[in-house]
Amino acid sequence: MTSLLLTGIAELVTNDPTHDGTPLGLLHDAAVVVEGRRIAWVGPRHAAPDADAARDLGGPAVLPGFVDSHSHLVFNGDRAEEFAARMAGESYAAGGIRTTVAATRAASDEQLYANVARLVAEMRRQGTTTVEIKSGYGLNVLDEARSLAIAREFTEETTFLGAHVVPPEFADDPAGYVELVSGRMLEAAAPHARWIDVFCERGAFDEDQARTILAAGQAAGLGGRLHANQLGLGPGVRLGCELGLTAVDHCTYLDDADVAALADSGTVATLLPGVEFSTRSPYPDARALLDAGVTVALASDCNPGSCYTSSMPLCVALAVREMRMTPAEAVWAATAGGARALARDDVGVLAPGHRAHLTVLDAPSYLHLAYRPGVPLVAEVIA
Amino acid sequence: MTSLLLTGIAELVTNDPTHDGTPLGLLHDAAVVVEGRRIAWVGPRHAAPDADAARDLGGPAVLPGFVDSHSHLVFNGDRAEEFAARMAGESYAAGGIRTTVAATRAASDEQLYANVARLVAEMRRQGTTTVEIKSGYGLNVLDEARSLAIAREFTEETTFLGAHVVPPEFADDPAGYVELVSGRMLEAAAPHARWIDVFCERGAFDEDQARTILAAGQAAGLGGRLHANQLGLGPGVRLGCELGLTAVDHCTYLDDADVAALADSGTVATLLPGVEFSTRSPYPDARALLDAGVTVALASDCNPGSCYTSSMPLCVALAVREMRMTPAEAVWAATAGGARALARDDVGVLAPGHRAHLTVLDAPSYLHLAYRPGVPLVAEVIA
Repeated sequence: MTSLLLTGIAELVTNDPTHDGTPLGLLHDAAVVVEGRRIAWVGPRHAAPDADAARDLGGPAVLPGFVDSHSHLVFNGDRAEEFAARMAGESYAAGGIRTTVAATRAASDEQLYANVARLVAEMRRQGTTTVEIKSGYGLNVLDEARSLAIAREFTEETTFLGAHVVPPEFADDPAGYVELVSGRMLEAAAPHARWIDVFCERGAFDEDQARTILAAGQAAGLGGRLHANQLGLGPGVRLGCELGLTAVDHCTYLDDADVAALADSGTVATLLPGVEFSTRSPYPDARALLDAGVTVALASDCNPGSCYTSSMPLCVALAVREMRMTPAEAVWAATAGGARALARDDVGVLAPGHRAHLTVLDAPSYLHLAYRPGVPLVAEVIA
Repeated sequence: MTSLLLTGIAELVTNDPTHDGTPLGLLHDAAVVVEGRRIAWVGPRHAAPDADAARDLGGPAVLPGFVDSHSHLVFNGDRAEEFAARMAGESYAAGGIRTTVAATRAASDEQLYANVARLVAEMRRQGTTTVEIKSGYGLNVLDEARSLAIAREFTEETTFLGAHVVPPEFADDPAGYVELVSGRMLEAAAPHARWIDVFCERGAFDEDQARTILAAGQAAGLGGRLHANQLGLGPGVRLGCELGLTAVDHCTYLDDADVAALADSGTVATLLPGVEFSTRSPYPDARALLDAGVTVALASDCNPGSCYTSSMPLCVALAVREMRMTPAEAVWAATAGGARALARDDVGVLAPGHRAHLTVLDAPSYLHLAYRPGVPLVAEVIA
């Protein structure tokens, strides 16, 4: 296996605190040795070992590829008109999901595959090297299974979200839909999925329904996650903590008991500030979570309804502007935090043995991700 | 002169209301004929005339290139640490400008030229085809003149902003500095400039000083503009209207008399939402301006202190999210509005005789500029 020495790195974010005693593990004038798909060595340039080949990156900042732990990329159509109406004053309602369900069911496999490929490539251009992709716009056995099979072509991090909303054909029989999701639909989905997720929110699924579905998923070997507390206070976050889930996502509305439950359980709170941006909602209180010792991740939630951004750099900028995270906390949350939210110990950190997923910025410091909002700052992705 | 027929345009923003009776002048399944640097014809595909060559763009939305009427690109260094400190709670003060003045004076012509070239290219990749560039980090005769000479290499829209702040060496003699700006500095700057601008704000220049400097600039043949009402209420906006200036920029804090003065005078109000984003300030009330009949432009204010974004798409998204402009109003303000703010009748509109500056999106509608914030949606710029 040939080794490659990367130099000319003005600033390297490793997320390995052994380098500088901070979570970001910053190195200046750094070098990285890559062997095959893994990192073999990380340290200061002057101490770098020899390698079979060398490349000078010319002085930029380099960080681990973003780990986007929450997205919904398998769908057809868009909802630009719904967005414009919302910006003109209409409020966001989860029911809009059904518009995309109809378009997705009507789409061919090829259309869905092409849409995912386009969005994954768009994410990659913006520095994302690991992405979780959910189903949830099929909402029947066939369309959920094919959504996950398509997602699986692009990532190991696939999530079965049959419990996104109750589809129209079960409007009068939500219990029947929960049974389907926990039974035949799960059976068809599980071979293609690593995770199971439930939208636990007024208008979607309540606590008991969420318990039933998560228990069935876990019995089928899937890890549990939740959409919770997006539209208001509710039982979702505490449920996720009680069940010891890896992550609960959104966390827009939290009371003190929710924050305490997150801190005690170790469940990751995944914040999705693009949603608050695109639904003109109040942002979650990241400061309160961080101050309580909760592990925070940032993700895009890229989806055609509530948030059609694929940009992790924008999420970082919003986290700093709107949620009072420091740039260092935001960059950590978008990389190492995302890895924690997916229970992955091989990405999100640049250290020996980890995957060689590097995002090279057209900037001298990671600070520029927040300092230069909206600017396409990713020069190159090495993965 | 050979002509080129562009087809495959799903949605064309022309800013020519004759097409659909709205300011955006939308056409669907449109075509454009370009002859040399100008547009020769615009209309529906089925009515397009013959041309020497043809190109099918493959179905995206196309709009006029963005007209960014307010930027400060001639500088050296950055102020990322100041940004991080501000996000941690320190407030923005105009005095930070002096940090960049020191770095700019110390830079070689080549360094300054390379920095401007990099930022203009970055803007172009994001769809900007016309950019105004100010001096204002030289603040002595030599450095203001060379800043403008460098800016002139990139744009016709150069603005002399010797009156950005009072430099340290005149701290005890602001009157002497106003005399210098209005005299020898203006004389050296004027050959390279189209406009003169004053930062009329507490901590910078007061109303009388602004009058003196603007009068001198106008006597030297330059058009007047103002930075006004960014940090608080003040006389700047009303002064700009009284003097019949083409545009006053920022307009963050306005009272009813300011709005009325703008509506009566026809002076363009240029809003710079990236500044409010990056200084965590309240946004201007665009809705009140539009409802009063004021012409609104959007610009980036790209500069290393208060707003280091170069992204007009981000400005559009912020205008919609934070200032309650509709996507149509925001896109108009970022194109035709910018042209009005620079008194240009050859850009910002796609109509026969206008410059062939077209921004091709990787999206089916201009709505996506607000619907997909942070995503690099500009596929190509034709200019």
